[in-house]
Amino acid sequence: MNQPKTWSQRFESALDPIVAEFNASIGFDIELIEYDLTGSVAHAKMLAKVGIISPEEAETLVSGLEQIRQEYRQGTFNPGVDAEDVHFAVERRLTELVGDAGKKLHTARSRNDQVGTDTRLYLRDKIQTIRQNVRQFQRALLRLAEQNVETPIPGYTHLQRAQPLSLAHHLLAYFEMFQRDWERLGEVYERVNISPLGSGALAGTTFPIDRHYTAELLGFKQPYRNSLDGVSDRDFAIEFVNAASLIMVHLSRLSEEVILWASQEFNFIQLKDNCSTGSSIMPQKKNPDVPELVRGKTGRVFGHLQGLLVLMKALPLAYNKDLQEDKEALFDTVKTVQGCLQSMTVLFDSGLEFRTERLQTAVAEDFSNATDVADYLAAKGVPFREAYNLVGKVVRTSLAAGKLLKDLTLEEWQDLHPQFEADIYQAIAPKQVISARNSYGGTGFEQVRQALNTAQTLLEN
Amino acid sequence: MNQPKTWSQRFESALDPIVAEFNASIGFDIELIEYDLTGSVAHAKMLAKVGIISPEEAETLVSGLEQIRQEYRQGTFNPGVDAEDVHFAVERRLTELVGDAGKKLHTARSRNDQVGTDTRLYLRDKIQTIRQNVRQFQRALLRLAEQNVETPIPGYTHLQRAQPLSLAHHLLAYFEMFQRDWERLGEVYERVNISPLGSGALAGTTFPIDRHYTAELLGFKQPYRNSLDGVSDRDFAIEFVNAASLIMVHLSRLSEEVILWASQEFNFIQLKDNCSTGSSIMPQKKNPDVPELVRGKTGRVFGHLQGLLVLMKALPLAYNKDLQEDKEALFDTVKTVQGCLQSMTVLFDSGLEFRTERLQTAVAEDFSNATDVADYLAAKGVPFREAYNLVGKVVRTSLAAGKLLKDLTLEEWQDLHPQFEADIYQAIAPKQVISARNSYGGTGFEQVRQALNTAQTLLEN
Amino acid sequence: MNQPKTWSQRFESALDPIVAEFNASIGFDIELIEYDLTGSVAHAKMLAKVGIISPEEAETLVSGLEQIRQEYRQGTFNPGVDAEDVHFAVERRLTELVGDAGKKLHTARSRNDQVGTDTRLYLRDKIQTIRQNVRQFQRALLRLAEQNVETPIPGYTHLQRAQPLSLAHHLLAYFEMFQRDWERLGEVYERVNISPLGSGALAGTTFPIDRHYTAELLGFKQPYRNSLDGVSDRDFAIEFVNAASLIMVHLSRLSEEVILWASQEFNFIQLKDNCSTGSSIMPQKKNPDVPELVRGKTGRVFGHLQGLLVLMKALPLAYNKDLQEDKEALFDTVKTVQGCLQSMTVLFDSGLEFRTERLQTAVAEDFSNATDVADYLAAKGVPFREAYNLVGKVVRTSLAAGKLLKDLTLEEWQDLHPQFEADIYQAIAPKQVISARNSYGGTGFEQVRQALNTAQTLLEN
Amino acid sequence: MNQPKTWSQRFESALDPIVAEFNASIGFDIELIEYDLTGSVAHAKMLAKVGIISPEEAETLVSGLEQIRQEYRQGTFNPGVDAEDVHFAVERRLTELVGDAGKKLHTARSRNDQVGTDTRLYLRDKIQTIRQNVRQFQRALLRLAEQNVETPIPGYTHLQRAQPLSLAHHLLAYFEMFQRDWERLGEVYERVNISPLGSGALAGTTFPIDRHYTAELLGFKQPYRNSLDGVSDRDFAIEFVNAASLIMVHLSRLSEEVILWASQEFNFIQLKDNCSTGSSIMPQKKNPDVPELVRGKTGRVFGHLQGLLVLMKALPLAYNKDLQEDKEALFDTVKTVQGCLQSMTVLFDSGLEFRTERLQTAVAEDFSNATDVADYLAAKGVPFREAYNLVGKVVRTSLAAGKLLKDLTLEEWQDLHPQFEADIYQAIAPKQVISARNSYGGTGFEQVRQALNTAQTLLEN
Repeated sequence: MNQPKTWSQRFESALDPIVAEFNASIGFDIELIEYDLTGSVAHAKMLAKVGIISPEEAETLVSGLEQIRQEYRQGTFNPGVDAEDVHFAVERRLTELVGDAGKKLHTARSRNDQVGTDTRLYLRDKIQTIRQNVRQFQRALLRLAEQNVETPIPGYTHLQRAQPLSLAHHLLAYFEMFQRDWERLGEVYERVNISPLGSGALAGTTFPIDRHYTAELLGFKQPYRNSLDGVSDRDFAIEFVNAASLIMVHLSRLSEEVILWASQEFNFIQLKDNCSTGSSIMPQKKNPDVPELVRGKTGRVFGHLQGLLVLMKALPLAYNKDLQEDKEALFDTVKTVQGCLQSMTVLFDSGLEFRTERLQTAVAEDFSNATDVADYLAAKGVPFREAYNLVGKVVRTSLAAGKLLKDLTLEEWQDLHPQFEADIYQAIAPKQVISARNSYGGTGFEQVRQALNTAQTLLEN
Repeated sequence: MNQPKTWSQRFESALDPIVAEFNASIGFDIELIEYDLTGSVAHAKMLAKVGIISPEEAETLVSGLEQIRQEYRQGTFNPGVDAEDVHFAVERRLTELVGDAGKKLHTARSRNDQVGTDTRLYLRDKIQTIRQNVRQFQRALLRLAEQNVETPIPGYTHLQRAQPLSLAHHLLAYFEMFQRDWERLGEVYERVNISPLGSGALAGTTFPIDRHYTAELLGFKQPYRNSLDGVSDRDFAIEFVNAASLIMVHLSRLSEEVILWASQEFNFIQLKDNCSTGSSIMPQKKNPDVPELVRGKTGRVFGHLQGLLVLMKALPLAYNKDLQEDKEALFDTVKTVQGCLQSMTVLFDSGLEFRTERLQTAVAEDFSNATDVADYLAAKGVPFREAYNLVGKVVRTSLAAGKLLKDLTLEEWQDLHPQFEADIYQAIAPKQVISARNSYGGTGFEQVRQALNTAQTLLEN
Repeated sequence: MNQPKTWSQRFESALDPIVAEFNASIGFDIELIEYDLTGSVAHAKMLAKVGIISPEEAETLVSGLEQIRQEYRQGTFNPGVDAEDVHFAVERRLTELVGDAGKKLHTARSRNDQVGTDTRLYLRDKIQTIRQNVRQFQRALLRLAEQNVETPIPGYTHLQRAQPLSLAHHLLAYFEMFQRDWERLGEVYERVNISPLGSGALAGTTFPIDRHYTAELLGFKQPYRNSLDGVSDRDFAIEFVNAASLIMVHLSRLSEEVILWASQEFNFIQLKDNCSTGSSIMPQKKNPDVPELVRGKTGRVFGHLQGLLVLMKALPLAYNKDLQEDKEALFDTVKTVQGCLQSMTVLFDSGLEFRTERLQTAVAEDFSNATDVADYLAAKGVPFREAYNLVGKVVRTSLAAGKLLKDLTLEEWQDLHPQFEADIYQAIAPKQVISARNSYGGTGFEQVRQALNTAQTLLEN
Repeated sequence: MNQPKTWSQRFESALDPIVAEFNASIGFDIELIEYDLTGSVAHAKMLAKVGIISPEEAETLVSGLEQIRQEYRQGTFNPGVDAEDVHFAVERRLTELVGDAGKKLHTARSRNDQVGTDTRLYLRDKIQTIRQNVRQFQRALLRLAEQNVETPIPGYTHLQRAQPLSLAHHLLAYFEMFQRDWERLGEVYERVNISPLGSGALAGTTFPIDRHYTAELLGFKQPYRNSLDGVSDRDFAIEFVNAASLIMVHLSRLSEEVILWASQEFNFIQLKDNCSTGSSIMPQKKNPDVPELVRGKTGRVFGHLQGLLVLMKALPLAYNKDLQEDKEALFDTVKTVQGCLQSMTVLFDSGLEFRTERLQTAVAEDFSNATDVADYLAAKGVPFREAYNLVGKVVRTSLAAGKLLKDLTLEEWQDLHPQFEADIYQAIAPKQVISARNSYGGTGFEQVRQALNTAQTLLEN
């Protein structure tokens, strides 16, 4: 008969079909199969090394496991819902392939430490790939920055024009955010890269296993120090999704800016056809779908973070079935973050173009040089707060008169304060306004050039 | 030719393949296809009714759409990623099937109002099914309650034994929660059941369409009163996922109790084989997987709620591509809540059995009748707070002496307070303790029987 | 002696001071004091009505409770952390004031049903106030809409110019959202307005209380039907915070638009001094603080919703101390939503002014009339998809030539398609483009005027 | 006149009072005052160092700032809502105290970099304190573990008895979780400890400031490399609240266990009076308030995490008023985590006692030694899966017969499988069952003793 139950003869009858369907994880944990096989190979080798099974048995197991890997890659291994999960599916197929030896593989191991091992192997891989995706995006930002050191762009606070910036400086702000993301992922990696294998169901095992050996075979830094912690810890998953949430925060901020820049009102960039879509009804439309979708996917990742936190809240030790729910959140987070980073890289590499003429004009038509007037006076000894108040008044009267600061005559300036001299005009020219903010980390061109060098160096690590 | 672009000749070149993949929703919105076809049928009929297309054209369109429905059901309609989304996939296939008439279907309509219509038709259906799932679970609870009016069970506050209960009363508390869920879903339904069709891209249309007619054909209560609101409102999705979150709150609370009851320490229920699973390593194990998984899935639904709220935060009017992200959260919430309700129904129908002997013993071995002693004195005129303090002292000395209240002699009682008489023993017997709480809504058996009748009546609505 | 413990002589020693501080809720639940007093007055009257206490005792209790109310209002009742919570603080003061009768007040009641009653009385009040705040804001929107039926404003999808709108139509979209909020709060109110009083600790009581009488005295629609549910249900709090979250979604969307409109790039509104602030360093700045803060406060309310859901997850019946945590989330949500609604009402009443000239210009300088060209042809029998493709091409060539559609000559039109006639110019004039979208719920002026009437009617309910 | 406006004469009229109230942060950011003063002292010294102000002016400013610190500590500095925020409140008072020099303090600085500096100084402090709180709690766990190496406790998976454990091993699992928390906080600290001071409003400044000098004076590791990033980065706050959320996950898991252990059913611990409270109505009650409240506060911290993520989603650069909302979430998280850690430390230090007799009995009365029977056979060469199946059958028949494994006769064992010998009884005795799990990280006593040493060493770092 086709009774697939792998658990013990403690049971007399089968699962209700609705429950079996509800319970099975094979629909999604098949994603872990190659990591499961790799983990089992290491376990089999260790069993032989310490003498629990013979070297021949180990070889048989390893070759059976590798055959399953080939079957999976060729698409001929497709376990159904009756397999319950990827671990049972593999064990069952293994026993078909290699006979009794297959029944020894699970010695000194439990699904609890096994699935923990698989998940960490999976996530370790994905973190490395995502770090590369981050690096690629940083490179795209850096390339664009290098071409735009002296391209001006209005700088905003409160979405009000504040002070003009070097476009490179603006792009480097994002470079810095992703630099932190890259570092953070590196730290998370360290806590992912620890081996629970050999923790058993919860308490370790009576067999003389060598956990350091399996850890070493699998490239883990070390085994978990406590078996209960080994099977019930999901900190690493939450940490990863938090790091991913911060990536999404940064991507969503940049996406918002791209959407603004692409609007007819800002008109700072032109979207290219390879990264925009049209409307089904409005023939003139060219929509910034990539940044919109990225922004939209932000909530999804935040939701996964909350989902995982809620999952873990108040769970008593050690393993509980609830933990099965960690996987889909993790898989979808990986997929989402990768898709977003890759699409944004395409966008910044080849999907948008800054309209530099428009940017040049933009920075010359506002009052974002007002601080420089206050600084001008303050540099001549007028207390900053007084200078600031004075300039506020000038802005108000100029606005009323429909003038910009550059339109004031020298007499008008000197009426306002005797310390103004002819060099005020130079002081408030956009290029000078940017260039003069040459404090460390500021938008002054000299600073920006140094920052580009620093960024280049960071990328080389 | 392989040009899949359905948008206008405003574009010269195709989407970058990475972006196309990222952008496409066909991978999941195919779930909406039958609703999309139904919506299009209504739209076609309306176009003919008001004279925008001819009756013959309408007939052609309708029969083409119904043919696609058949193809889909037979598994021969499988659009790929180049179709972008279900709407374009259908329109393209329709034009293949019926020629030029197909190109007229989209007159006076936009994908924005179309997808809104599809989603509402989908959710309307699912809410009705989920309400039935709720009802079935309530029936399971009620059946069990009816069999257990006089079965006692310890009642807890702070997970400390508080006062003994009728098991039926305990089960009816959950009945009430699900009654609110059923009502709430009914209210959400009303706000889902409104038609955005005819809102166009955002502003309505220049064509003389009849939105009330399509609303009527599709069974909607009324059309949206404002076209901008029609295409950008997702309140209904959030409301639904909030209602689903409350269902999960209730299911998780009950699950927690089942898990406790199934522990060796509580030992209040026996799990049957049809609803429990074993361990891969510990042969004695019989695990309450269903309630554990349900508890674990709670975070997932809460996460979707947050995901949708984050999605909508600060989105300017009207449609934005971000809104594409509403679907997967919705679909997974529907699937999760249904799976949980159905599995819990199986569990309560046939997967567990209360150990009534153990329950009888349990309620006789603690101090959960202490309040009754205080009430006994208060009923004889001793101020409640004094009586309460006195009984606290009795409990303390009894605990120290290893005695229960029923073990005290009448002399000991009367030493404590002269008003105690022989009827104190009857007053503190578990059955009496339960029975005496006969205030409205209390656990007294008489009250519980009335509550069962009320519940029966509620179910009939 | 200063022993504040109100619980029983079961205890020998006092709480650790760190724990006492951690445990005490008086720091925030004092906010409930007037509701607590009102609830106790009703309870006392009921106790007398059913004969548990004498009418004289009830009078004494009521007058003692009202005296505490006066003391609180005069600022002379200030219980400290040793009072643990507002209920004990009141009971202790009452006993000081009226002696032994005070010790009878807690007969047939528990803090569990008491705090549930207080919270519902509080929230009932606040929901009514917030509904009025919503109404006031709707009125502000409506007033502005009435003044701006024929004021145009660009309509956007994907933040790209889509089709021009009546500004009134745009504002009415928000009116509709807040109309749903108002309705939703009304439904939540119904589930808040149920009395848990008399549920006791969890199981009802042995005393012959009259729960319908206290419910009636307190204006509740009915008592809870199940005592366990009565003390452990917090659905109503979650429902309220969800309704509040939707209000924040709507406010944040409008805030985002105001922030955009106030930018120099959009320049659609002028912020007045009464609703904007400056910079500490940039004298020219005028910042839209109100909408920014409202947008910023959105996350706070979403966070409270999540906090409450997490709180309730997997809590076994009945009361658990965890439930104490429901209050601060509720109080802060109430305060936040009220502050946001009131400030936004000020903003829309007197803090901003639409720049109608700029809006007139804006709608004439883009391709947002392109759909009308396609509709023009479709109305003459050209299949919509063909017309749409053709217009896409026109837009592309016009853009390249730096022209708008209105700049094309009739010959150029007719070269494109022979069906174009001289009336094309009228069809694409912004006013006509808006006016022509006269389908139900559309932006056509006629529709908008009807919508204003409908809105007026809705407000009168 | 009482015009408190500190911004420029660009404004003609004052804020609406409702808006002023809504806008003011002084109600909560006063918590930052000492950090604000410290930051200003450093800024003043730097201004003098680079020659922007004179040494005398710097001295005047520093002494004025320190005087405000004294006034604040003495309770005489209490700015009201008209001060808007702590920065303006200080600047205003400073100018009152020292005259014109006060107006120079804000040279080359903005509130944007100032508040960022304050917040980082605050959080840096608090992280250090919380790390100490974590350490104290770890010490409490370790002390208890050291006393309980050979105390048995049932080990659970799925809340079903799985395998018996050393109580020390169980406690050390939590030690490990908090070790990760301690490490994580250390990593977060590194990213908090970076100076935004000198970033100006967004772009740096025209003054020749020395950001490395202020960073050094304030103990920061380095200045932010990019001024836009410096004023708009809130990663550090989110990272902290995520680390705090993980602390709450761990505390909530332990709390859940304490609540279970304190139940009459488990009865593994006795709560002491210093950490438990009673009921207002049930005199026998002794409630585990501390772990319940801790569990309840978990949602609050998760909610703050979500709130901050939502806050940052899609905010364009650089500073936006929304960012004001970061503070209350941060302050409440700090307060909550500290209160929870401190109260749990009291609980584990002096508020509970394990009932070792009950624990001894508990582990002898179940089938949690079944795995050992399977291991016994597997060690003798029976394939594990076969052994496992066999033992499952034994458990089933024993359960039916009301027997435990230790009750089987040797004949019965040998009937089951010929390889059983008399040493099977020793192999399944609880103490041996624990002791035998001596794989690395397992519960075997030898392993546990080594783990205690390792823990001790970790604490010394």
